[in-house]
Amino acid sequence: MKARVHVMLKNGVLDPQGEAVRHALGAMGFDGVEGVRQGKVIDLELAEGTTEAQVAEMCEKLLANTVIESYKIEMGA
Amino acid sequence: MKARVHVMLKNGVLDPQGEAVRHALGAMGFDGVEGVRQGKVIDLELAEGTTEAQVAEMCEKLLANTVIESYKIEMGA
Repeated sequence: MKARVHVMLKNGVLDPQGEAVRHALGAMGFDGVEGVRQGKVIDLELAEGTTEAQVAEMCEKLLANTVIESYKIEMGA
Repeated sequence: MKARVHVMLKNGVLDPQGEAVRHALGAMGFDGVEGVRQGKVIDLELAEGTTEAQVAEMCEKLLANTVIESYKIEMGA
């Protein structure tokens, strides 16, 4: 089975990487890019029967820095 | 309007970051993690009327390295 985890910086946390992308897009002539936030996506291939609670524990302990990042789990088939 | 772009390494391209996460999860006692692929997620805040074709152009030119990475665009409201 699969699970996908999105890890994004929390709102209010400065995102220099996203800001750099926004600036670069503007410099390349893409108008109308008003904001960019960049995060991580982690695709996990898991043994059958792994629960969302277990994936949440992985996020809390390793995948996300919960002081500044939030995470969202999508369990797949 | 919003758009979300996922940038992942193509299948077959070695993903040392994902491999490191897989190894770390195993070392922390999470059994059954069979594979991990890590990519980027980029949330764009765009001017109204921006088309998916324009976002695809941003991906081709800046957001993804299309030699080794694939991207997927989700246009939001």
